[in-house]
Amino acid sequence: MTIDAQILAALRGTHSVSGAELAGRLGISRAAIWARIEDLRKLGYEIEASPHHGYRLRHSPDLLLADDLASRLGDGCVVGREIHVFKETASTNDVVERLARDGAKEGVVVFAESQTKGRGRLGRKWHSPAGQGLYFSVLLRPKLRPVEATQLTVVAATALVRAIEAATTVRPVIKWPNDLLVGGRKIAGVLTELSAELDTIKHLILGIGLDVNQTAKDFAPEIREVATSLRIAGGESVSRPELATRILRELDRDYARICGGGFEGLADEWEARCTTIGQNVAIRIGERILKGRAESLDADGALLIRTQHGRLERIIGGDVTVEK
Amino acid sequence: MTIDAQILAALRGTHSVSGAELAGRLGISRAAIWARIEDLRKLGYEIEASPHHGYRLRHSPDLLLADDLASRLGDGCVVGREIHVFKETASTNDVVERLARDGAKEGVVVFAESQTKGRGRLGRKWHSPAGQGLYFSVLLRPKLRPVEATQLTVVAATALVRAIEAATTVRPVIKWPNDLLVGGRKIAGVLTELSAELDTIKHLILGIGLDVNQTAKDFAPEIREVATSLRIAGGESVSRPELATRILRELDRDYARICGGGFEGLADEWEARCTTIGQNVAIRIGERILKGRAESLDADGALLIRTQHGRLERIIGGDVTVEK
Repeated sequence: MTIDAQILAALRGTHSVSGAELAGRLGISRAAIWARIEDLRKLGYEIEASPHHGYRLRHSPDLLLADDLASRLGDGCVVGREIHVFKETASTNDVVERLARDGAKEGVVVFAESQTKGRGRLGRKWHSPAGQGLYFSVLLRPKLRPVEATQLTVVAATALVRAIEAATTVRPVIKWPNDLLVGGRKIAGVLTELSAELDTIKHLILGIGLDVNQTAKDFAPEIREVATSLRIAGGESVSRPELATRILRELDRDYARICGGGFEGLADEWEARCTTIGQNVAIRIGERILKGRAESLDADGALLIRTQHGRLERIIGGDVTVEK
Repeated sequence: MTIDAQILAALRGTHSVSGAELAGRLGISRAAIWARIEDLRKLGYEIEASPHHGYRLRHSPDLLLADDLASRLGDGCVVGREIHVFKETASTNDVVERLARDGAKEGVVVFAESQTKGRGRLGRKWHSPAGQGLYFSVLLRPKLRPVEATQLTVVAATALVRAIEAATTVRPVIKWPNDLLVGGRKIAGVLTELSAELDTIKHLILGIGLDVNQTAKDFAPEIREVATSLRIAGGESVSRPELATRILRELDRDYARICGGGFEGLADEWEARCTTIGQNVAIRIGERILKGRAESLDADGALLIRTQHGRLERIIGGDVTVEK
């Protein structure tokens, strides 16, 4: 952790802490502590200083700051062991892809306050306006085969729902394979991209886009009717750093779980939260349209569809429409 | 095609051609033609010039030159529509990966006279000494799902065998999934790498390493007993540009074939050339070892193994050892 992250962690862990104690713990001078506190104040942290009690953190800004996220997450997580935040980037998945090729360890997370070329599945655009959402990508190097990559989409969707439920009153459902919906409107999406040999994943990137504090007018007219945000759905704005930290913790926990062979238990939770299961659906796969009833997930996270002809088909991706 | 490639194509298409005719065809001056011919001679092309007959190509050097390869291949191929040759690079797959991310069209081929970090499957090193082998990578953007990527390994192995048989007396066999053997020794390997979303291949890179003109002493001591070259196996050196052109043509033809849904026919040819089929094998997949009889390829190019317990298992990769 950087000095700033250590200072924030110390302030969060207690009611207040003296400059002398901070200086001693971090092994730097009281003057250096004071200078760092001044810098944190400029970023928007309200830090009270009193001669008797020392420093006290009264309020954190709704900004994504790498030091702040690291301090909130603490040590011991694989997911988030290294965090970068960009003010603006083309696509966080592309940044992580470059890091991956340069040999970065799994668990690196890249956030962007806004993306100029944020994308969803199949090259679709993901609208990513500044300061209102969480747009981030996670580098993973799971010891899985490419056909098992769907497991990570399941991990991501489940972790997102759980974190949102803990932080807000909103109760999203999962639309297979990668969307979160609230009242039928899209609130989040997961883009899973992988680099692989035939039988081995070299690395996998989870790209997550979650609409947090947008109001209706923040959405472009063409998606206003189909998109929503936590603020619209829950009626109040949400602390993005707090939510981001919860999501990373859930991701870390579930990733450790599937690495230990525990995908099955997670799949049960996923199925319980997934509105697609049990529905009659039409799935567009390239130019083919398959119709049938979504029965369940299989051991690798693929969707099992009972077709009109009674056959069971295994689907790993495609565009799902629920039939009335 | 560049001017040089057009001159070489013209010289190859006829016994001899006058400077005036070349100048007319290419729309440049006779002096410019003469200057380009001088440059080609410096690269090692023996081009005779006679006042009566004009220019005549007597001999091409055993060098990989982009213009020469383009001229030999001619127009109309997807594979090889753009050819780059590096004197030395870390890995041709990495170069093509960067081109792919920059939006290059499928069919781009990158050769290197030598690679400093040539690699085989699972991060293994592929020894790539200068001037003796063919080390190249092909960018493809097939409309296939990741599970179907094995089809391209089959295309590559089959095209390699066919080109080698046409150009030499050597008769290699295929060892599933990606090696060519002669007399039990490895002569070529195919590394298939893909970038994908869950259900869609974004791009796929075929990396091919073929030992052509090495003598036994050119191999590092640790691989001398297990590796061979076309020169060792066939008793004579082979023109690398000629062989490279044949391979690209075969690849182009077979790629068009599978894009048109013709994988099944190709799989039959592959099976006939594959020594793994019909053998008792042990396959290491990660830390698991599976034993059984290799029965056949399935519709996606995966190997079907009948285990000792009579079950049929579908294998898309792994290390195969033939059991005695």
